[in-house]
Amino acid sequence: MSLVEDGVLSGHILVLGGTRSGKTALAERLATRKSSAPAYLATAEALDDEMVERVSAHQKSRSGRFATIEEPLELPQALFAAAQTHDVILVDCLTLWITNLLSMERDVADEVDTLVEVLAAMKDTQVILVSNEVGLGIVPDNALARTFRDLAGAAHQELAAICEHVYFVVAGLPMVVKGQYPDL
Amino acid sequence: MSLVEDGVLSGHILVLGGTRSGKTALAERLATRKSSAPAYLATAEALDDEMVERVSAHQKSRSGRFATIEEPLELPQALFAAAQTHDVILVDCLTLWITNLLSMERDVADEVDTLVEVLAAMKDTQVILVSNEVGLGIVPDNALARTFRDLAGAAHQELAAICEHVYFVVAGLPMVVKGQYPDL
Amino acid sequence: MSLVEDGVLSGHILVLGGTRSGKTALAERLATRKSSAPAYLATAEALDDEMVERVSAHQKSRSGRFATIEEPLELPQALFAAAQTHDVILVDCLTLWITNLLSMERDVADEVDTLVEVLAAMKDTQVILVSNEVGLGIVPDNALARTFRDLAGAAHQELAAICEHVYFVVAGLPMVVKGQYPDL
Repeated sequence: MSLVEDGVLSGHILVLGGTRSGKTALAERLATRKSSAPAYLATAEALDDEMVERVSAHQKSRSGRFATIEEPLELPQALFAAAQTHDVILVDCLTLWITNLLSMERDVADEVDTLVEVLAAMKDTQVILVSNEVGLGIVPDNALARTFRDLAGAAHQELAAICEHVYFVVAGLPMVVKGQYPDL
Repeated sequence: MSLVEDGVLSGHILVLGGTRSGKTALAERLATRKSSAPAYLATAEALDDEMVERVSAHQKSRSGRFATIEEPLELPQALFAAAQTHDVILVDCLTLWITNLLSMERDVADEVDTLVEVLAAMKDTQVILVSNEVGLGIVPDNALARTFRDLAGAAHQELAAICEHVYFVVAGLPMVVKGQYPDL
Repeated sequence: MSLVEDGVLSGHILVLGGTRSGKTALAERLATRKSSAPAYLATAEALDDEMVERVSAHQKSRSGRFATIEEPLELPQALFAAAQTHDVILVDCLTLWITNLLSMERDVADEVDTLVEVLAAMKDTQVILVSNEVGLGIVPDNALARTFRDLAGAAHQELAAICEHVYFVVAGLPMVVKGQYPDL
């Protein structure tokens, strides 16, 4: 099976990058290039003013192009449900999902395993996963931040293994970690 | 127009990388390979002993090869002026410029837009922009640091879009994000 | 001399990456693919419970495949000694070694120079060096952390220059900074 048909990628895609690296914009271009009715699965919970502003700015920028679903915790179930009616689902973002799970004292490794199983079983829906790369700075003083970095890094490894394409986004531009360079 | 002529790159270049990644040394090699009289536009203000030491070490290493111009704030204007007498200008670095603007409570997004306009209009002078990638660690506790990360990331995206070549420097070696691998 | 023979790399290898990026697992695959009796030179000192747990998890995962040597400080000497009996030595990791040297107030730049000399002289033993990329976040408030970042970055540049292959590992997958993509 070709990974690219008429410039459109098939298989799940993992889009990694730093803060304001342009990873969500890249994921949105990939999603709308492939589907006329993609879903946007947002894991953000707007708990403070800064987050309210960020979430609202993101929502405005994609209105009309995506059907938005908000689910801070039950991501595998929400993905499974959305796959019944959408051929492409953008998940933004995994790191916020992990943060939400941690704050509820859920077993993150277990949840990531479930997510991987659901993704592996989704053959007719393409999932584009967006996540923050957070492990390239100095070791944080805060123990919870260290745990979070470890869980995010482990999740990225597990998900990259089952994705057809993995990108590391720098300054709005994708670097190919696995698979094909996207035709944008 | 060819991007590479006799191994020398044309068009503006953005050199991104972490602390002590070797990004300035790479930018210096690119500048001196292309021009016999390049300018070095330094945005650093040596406000404490640590900075005095860093700035002085950098100056010593490039003495004789570059005409040094120091401008912590009015970068677009300084670039425009330097372009009257230099065919290659190395700007080191954008993240310090953004820090300086923030400390003066200037509108960083506006200033970056002006910089982009000036760069787009400079057809006969090649500008090599050096900047720190700072968005790949844990979210900082400090609100100002979060604002800075966002502004730096947004600036990198905007500048990468108008540069012909973008590099992500790791351990002194360039990884190509956009354009051609440099012939060093 | 070919860098790759039957898919097996020759020359020293530098494996860089963030926390839980999968860099040690990649280095272990490279080592066991090339040698039936590789050595594992661990620089970790298990000084607290968190480290004890990490070190013990790593040891369990490589038992039987590697001869483990523990040396927190005298890395060049330990490498030289191990090279008498091993054709491949995995060093995990340089950033911990630098931390250990700093805590003993040793001259890190001198020690790195000695390491480079020893590596350059080791023609019959392949060394695979694992190190954390720590310079891509916000400048730390802590002066010691800033010193550490600078020393680690300078060491990576110096070591990358004498290694045949340099990888930047993202989500368990190597991006080639220098040399050949590994056949895993």
